[in-house]
Amino acid sequence: MSSHETKLVVRYSETDQMGRVYYSRYLEWFELGRAEHLKAAGFPYSEMEKQGLYLVVADTYIKYLKPAKYEETVIVRTIIKEVGKASVIFEYEITESRSKTLLATGNSKLVAVTKEGKVTSIPENVKKLL
Amino acid sequence: MSSHETKLVVRYSETDQMGRVYYSRYLEWFELGRAEHLKAAGFPYSEMEKQGLYLVVADTYIKYLKPAKYEETVIVRTIIKEVGKASVIFEYEITESRSKTLLATGNSKLVAVTKEGKVTSIPENVKKLL
Amino acid sequence: MSSHETKLVVRYSETDQMGRVYYSRYLEWFELGRAEHLKAAGFPYSEMEKQGLYLVVADTYIKYLKPAKYEETVIVRTIIKEVGKASVIFEYEITESRSKTLLATGNSKLVAVTKEGKVTSIPENVKKLL
Amino acid sequence: MSSHETKLVVRYSETDQMGRVYYSRYLEWFELGRAEHLKAAGFPYSEMEKQGLYLVVADTYIKYLKPAKYEETVIVRTIIKEVGKASVIFEYEITESRSKTLLATGNSKLVAVTKEGKVTSIPENVKKLL
Repeated sequence: MSSHETKLVVRYSETDQMGRVYYSRYLEWFELGRAEHLKAAGFPYSEMEKQGLYLVVADTYIKYLKPAKYEETVIVRTIIKEVGKASVIFEYEITESRSKTLLATGNSKLVAVTKEGKVTSIPENVKKLL
Repeated sequence: MSSHETKLVVRYSETDQMGRVYYSRYLEWFELGRAEHLKAAGFPYSEMEKQGLYLVVADTYIKYLKPAKYEETVIVRTIIKEVGKASVIFEYEITESRSKTLLATGNSKLVAVTKEGKVTSIPENVKKLL
Repeated sequence: MSSHETKLVVRYSETDQMGRVYYSRYLEWFELGRAEHLKAAGFPYSEMEKQGLYLVVADTYIKYLKPAKYEETVIVRTIIKEVGKASVIFEYEITESRSKTLLATGNSKLVAVTKEGKVTSIPENVKKLL
Repeated sequence: MSSHETKLVVRYSETDQMGRVYYSRYLEWFELGRAEHLKAAGFPYSEMEKQGLYLVVADTYIKYLKPAKYEETVIVRTIIKEVGKASVIFEYEITESRSKTLLATGNSKLVAVTKEGKVTSIPENVKKLL
């Protein structure tokens, strides 16, 4: 079980007319967290795709606690909870950097597939990195 | 318990380099479904906001079954499952129009808040419409 | 020189915290206008890509006149201004449907390329459709 | 005339099915460049809005030279070309970090407005910072 932290600054394009970050944007941050986690583990996702291994999201749950605001710095913490034969479970925590306020939590199941979309097992060397 | 169907055509900007719709986009479609549902019930969300009533998402779950592709027509079915004192539970089904294939299902809890973000009860006349 | 009109309703996800549509979203609408224009001409862009012909944007200009707002219906008018050997020039007008107010105007040059990104000439049958 | 550089890593959500960054995303990067430029000048845009000063985009031009790809690091260089009574002209250069390849260039005119959208002059102290 490994964890990783990614920092990002909220962009204007991520806000909506309620003056907060639009609710689907957190899923882009989850994905960014996963990508940085894989990169830190030594296997960037862009490399994975070049080798014909794709991770597609099977489901996602997100709970919104406090709204993120424009120009705030947020930390996306990703935790690899479980690595199965052909799947990985990620958990997420999004925190506002200055006040350490928890903004959102969530989790997703990802499934390994080939370019054609067929489920495939995760190679042993990748499993070890995760 | 009321339900509503909204049709949309997948935009190029909604695809990603795997050649399918990016996974956070479905949440934008959920929201579009909710908005069209409220409009059909006689109370457009833009009107609601003008009256100082906001619905913010408390949580969302989504299960991805089959990828949506560029230029496909998809149907977003929203069902109002439960209307509480200060909250509404929506369920969703996203279907590819031609083949009737189910692409994704999900649900969200929305909470009624004032412009300042304080939880507030849903007025009786709005409850009746839902 | 042909023209085409596409209607769309402004989505909540397209607004920003100024309470108007975020400025890059209009380029997504331009693209939607182009796609609907090609589809109406009998050659959907998804079909074009399947045949190995891609149209990539070489440049775009946009002038913002009035802000578009949430839930407004807008009309995207696209005009094919010029079809060259390997390029097409589109012009755009975005209008608020009810008041007929012009919200934005613009233009783009698109270049025909192969999947590998090499400039290629536009087939005669496609030229005729445009 | 001041200039500023911002670094960012291309996100998966920014790609499209051609395997490159979708063409409207560069405008989000331009805006990010402007925001970081203002912050570096000592006047974050979030602060500006709190004081009732908004900068809205009047027009934008962008020329695409080479596609940006997933996980590449790109540098957004913004240059304040001209500060008028109520407007600012920004120029942009987007470069792929490793190869120093120029990916896109552009410019925008921004106009200072009040919350109500009325054109207003840029305060002298802000002018000095720019």
